[in-house]
Amino acid sequence: MTTSPELSPVSGAPDVRDLRVDGRRLWNSLMQLAELGATEKGGVCRIALTDLDRQGRDLFSRWAREAGCELRVDAIGNIFARRAGRNNALPPVTTGSHIDTQPTGGKFDGNYGVLAGLEVIRSLNDAQVVTEAPLEVAVWTNEEGSRFVPVMMGSGVFAGAFTLEHALAQRDNEGTSVADALAAIGYAGPAQASAAASPVGAYFEAHIEQGPVLEANERVIGVVEGALGQRWYDVVVQGMEAHAGPTPMELRRDALLAASELVVEVNRIALAQAPHGRGTVGWIDAYPNSRNVIPGRVRLSVDLRAADDTVLLAMDAALKQATQRIGALHKVDIGVEQVVYFPPQAFAPALVSAVREAAQQQGMTWMNVISGAGHDAVYLARVCPAAMIFVPCLDGISHNEIEDAQPDHLEAGCNVLMQAMLQSAGVVAS
Amino acid sequence: MTTSPELSPVSGAPDVRDLRVDGRRLWNSLMQLAELGATEKGGVCRIALTDLDRQGRDLFSRWAREAGCELRVDAIGNIFARRAGRNNALPPVTTGSHIDTQPTGGKFDGNYGVLAGLEVIRSLNDAQVVTEAPLEVAVWTNEEGSRFVPVMMGSGVFAGAFTLEHALAQRDNEGTSVADALAAIGYAGPAQASAAASPVGAYFEAHIEQGPVLEANERVIGVVEGALGQRWYDVVVQGMEAHAGPTPMELRRDALLAASELVVEVNRIALAQAPHGRGTVGWIDAYPNSRNVIPGRVRLSVDLRAADDTVLLAMDAALKQATQRIGALHKVDIGVEQVVYFPPQAFAPALVSAVREAAQQQGMTWMNVISGAGHDAVYLARVCPAAMIFVPCLDGISHNEIEDAQPDHLEAGCNVLMQAMLQSAGVVAS
Repeated sequence: MTTSPELSPVSGAPDVRDLRVDGRRLWNSLMQLAELGATEKGGVCRIALTDLDRQGRDLFSRWAREAGCELRVDAIGNIFARRAGRNNALPPVTTGSHIDTQPTGGKFDGNYGVLAGLEVIRSLNDAQVVTEAPLEVAVWTNEEGSRFVPVMMGSGVFAGAFTLEHALAQRDNEGTSVADALAAIGYAGPAQASAAASPVGAYFEAHIEQGPVLEANERVIGVVEGALGQRWYDVVVQGMEAHAGPTPMELRRDALLAASELVVEVNRIALAQAPHGRGTVGWIDAYPNSRNVIPGRVRLSVDLRAADDTVLLAMDAALKQATQRIGALHKVDIGVEQVVYFPPQAFAPALVSAVREAAQQQGMTWMNVISGAGHDAVYLARVCPAAMIFVPCLDGISHNEIEDAQPDHLEAGCNVLMQAMLQSAGVVAS
Repeated sequence: MTTSPELSPVSGAPDVRDLRVDGRRLWNSLMQLAELGATEKGGVCRIALTDLDRQGRDLFSRWAREAGCELRVDAIGNIFARRAGRNNALPPVTTGSHIDTQPTGGKFDGNYGVLAGLEVIRSLNDAQVVTEAPLEVAVWTNEEGSRFVPVMMGSGVFAGAFTLEHALAQRDNEGTSVADALAAIGYAGPAQASAAASPVGAYFEAHIEQGPVLEANERVIGVVEGALGQRWYDVVVQGMEAHAGPTPMELRRDALLAASELVVEVNRIALAQAPHGRGTVGWIDAYPNSRNVIPGRVRLSVDLRAADDTVLLAMDAALKQATQRIGALHKVDIGVEQVVYFPPQAFAPALVSAVREAAQQQGMTWMNVISGAGHDAVYLARVCPAAMIFVPCLDGISHNEIEDAQPDHLEAGCNVLMQAMLQSAGVVAS
C-alpha cells in the first residue's frame, strides 16, 4: 500500500535522493551502545531482559525522544519510536531490529538495524524532511533467544507466529518467566503486541550479513530477496557399545560410524541443492565417549535450509532415506524427530526493488542475496510488505566477540535504508 | 624352560588328565568376591587401591592361606600366593589376573583369572597332586587404570615396561599418589617388583573374552595366540566456526564434516586389514557444539590395532594420508599425535599348544584367537613364556555392570588352565 503512486515524492518537492546520513554519528552511537555489556575481547554481552538490556533500551529511548519521536512499548516489550508524517492515519513505514545479544556477541548484530533507523530519523530531522506516512523505529524483544526461547520472540508475537501468553510464560534456566523479567526491567508495556492492532505499512531491516557472501563477491549491499526455509531435527543413533580391542569390525554396531556417515550425507544433500541448500550438523554427543569403547549411542542435530519449500521437502526425504540406508548398513537404529520448521519467506518485490534502486542510484556495488538466518523481518513479512538490507561483516563472522564491520559499509547500508524508507513513505517537503 | 622334558609328567606318576576343578566352588568364590563393591545393577565397583580393593585383597589372601599358600606382596602391591612344588628352586608356573574393576565394572573381568588360579590350587590340594615346580597365583595391581594411569600398572612394573618409581609417583584426580594409596591399604610390600628378582617359569591367564568372537563361533575356549599391537592418537581438526544459515556450503571450513570423513576412513583402514585390523573413534568433542553453528574445532581419539607390526605401520601411514587428503579437501588443519604404542605380542608357542591340547583332550569346542585388548599376560610375555585362555562372556559385553558369563564356561576355562599349568609344572605325584 505504501508504494502506491500517491506516496511517491510529491511533485514539486525538493529531490531528497542526494540526502545522506551522518556515518560518523551512526558509528559513535553504535560504539556508545556497545559499552553497555562490553566484554574484554571487544564484544558485547547484553542478554535479553537483563538490567543491561534495560540500560540499552533506556539509552535508545532517550536518543529517540531527543530526536523528537513519540515512544510506545507493547505487552511483549517491543519499543516503537515514531516520527510523525503529514498523514498520521497512514500505517507507518517501520525499520528496526534488536539490541539483545548472544552471551559472546558482537557490537553490530541487531544493534546496527536499530541505530541505522535512529540515524535515518536524525538525518531527516537535520534536513527537515517531512514524509507523508509516519516512520517508526522498532526494537524487537529477545531476538537472540539465548535466555528465553523461542527466538525472535517480540516480532513473533507481533506477527502472530505464537501467542503473547505463550511467550510471557517462557522461563529461563533460573526459572524466571518472560513476564516477570519484562516487569522487572520496566518494559511490560500497555500497547497491544500485534500487527492487527498496529498495522505496519512497510518494514525494512538493515543488518550485517552474518555470512561471507558479500565479502567473497566484493559487494557492499546485499539486496535480500527472502529468507531460507529451515527444518531442524534431533537425531539419535542407537548402536551397541563394546570394547574397541576385542570386537572385530564386522561384529560392531558403531553408532559414531553411522553418525559420521550421516554427517557426510547431510552435507551431500545440501551441496546437491546449490547455491541455496544448507546442511549442518552443529551438535554431536557420543556415549560413553571413551577412547577405547565403540560408541553405543550418538545424538546429533541436523539443520537443513533451502530457498524453496519443494526443495526443502526433497532434502527432508533424502535425509530420511539416508538414515534408513545407514541404519540398515550398520545395524543401528536411527530416530529422526523434526523440532523446528520455518517456511521459506519471500520478501515484498516492491520493497526489494526499492532497496536495489537505492543502491544503484547511489552507485554502490550490490548483489541479490537470500538470508540464511532468521531475522525479525522474516516474521514481519507475514503481516506486511518487508525487505532487508545486508552489509558485509569481517570474514562473515557473527555471534562472536570479534564480529566487526566497516564504518563506510554501515553508512552505505544506512543510506540505502533511508532512501528505501523515503520511497515507501513518500516525501512531502524538505 | 618349564616345558623342557624334565618337567613333563614323571614316568609312573598317576595320570592327572582326568582331574577336574570344582565349578560350583569357583562360581561361589566369584559371587562372594563380587559382593565387595557390588552395584545395584549387578556389577562391581572396586577401584584400584581403595578400601574395597583392600577388602578384596584381604579375602583372596585369606582364601590362599587357607589353601596352604605362602603369600608375598611386592613394592607395587602385586600379591603372589605360592603353592610349593617338589623342586622349589625352579621358577614357579604362575597364573593370575587382577581384582580391581572399572567404575561400572562386572563380576568376571580379572576376578575370574585370579579365582580360577585359586580354584586350580584348591583342586590340586583336594587331589593331593604334587607338582615339580611351584605354582603361584598373582593378583596384579591396578590393571584397569580407572583411578591411576598407566593401566596394567602392577604387571607393567614387574615386566619392566616402566619403573617402580614412575608408577608410585602417579596421582589420582584427588592428588593421592599410588605410593600413598598402597600404604593406606597396607599393600606396599617388601618384595622387589621385578621378574628379574622373581623369575617366572611360565605364565597363564584365564580371562573372559570381552568380545563377541567365541559366542559368534559357538566355541567355549579361545586359545589365545597373542595380542594385537595398538597405536592410539589424539586428533585435532581445526576449521572455522560460522553461522549455519548464512554460510554457503562451498565457503565452509566445517571441522565436523572433516572429522566425520576421518571416522569413516579409520573404519575403512581397519576393515582392509581383516580379520585382525581394528579402527575405532571412541571419543569426539565438537566446538562450539551449538545446533546452528558450523563446528570450528573437533577433537577425537583414534585407536588402531593389528596383529602384525608391519600392518599396524601401514595403517598408521594410511591414517596420516587420510588426514592430509581430508584436510586439504575441506580447508581444515588436522593434527595427529600418537599417544600410546603397544607392539603386537605373540604368546609362547609351547604354552599356546598346552592350552590347545588341554581343550582338545577335554573334548571342548575351541578356536585360535588373538586378544584385541591389553592384559597383564601381555606384559608378562616380555619376561617369560606366557599364554592366555579365553572363555565367552554374554554378548561380548565387558566393562559393564551387566557383564555376564556361564558357570560351565568358566569351569571349562579353569579346567584348561589347570591342565596347562600341570603340563608346564610337571606332576610328581597324586
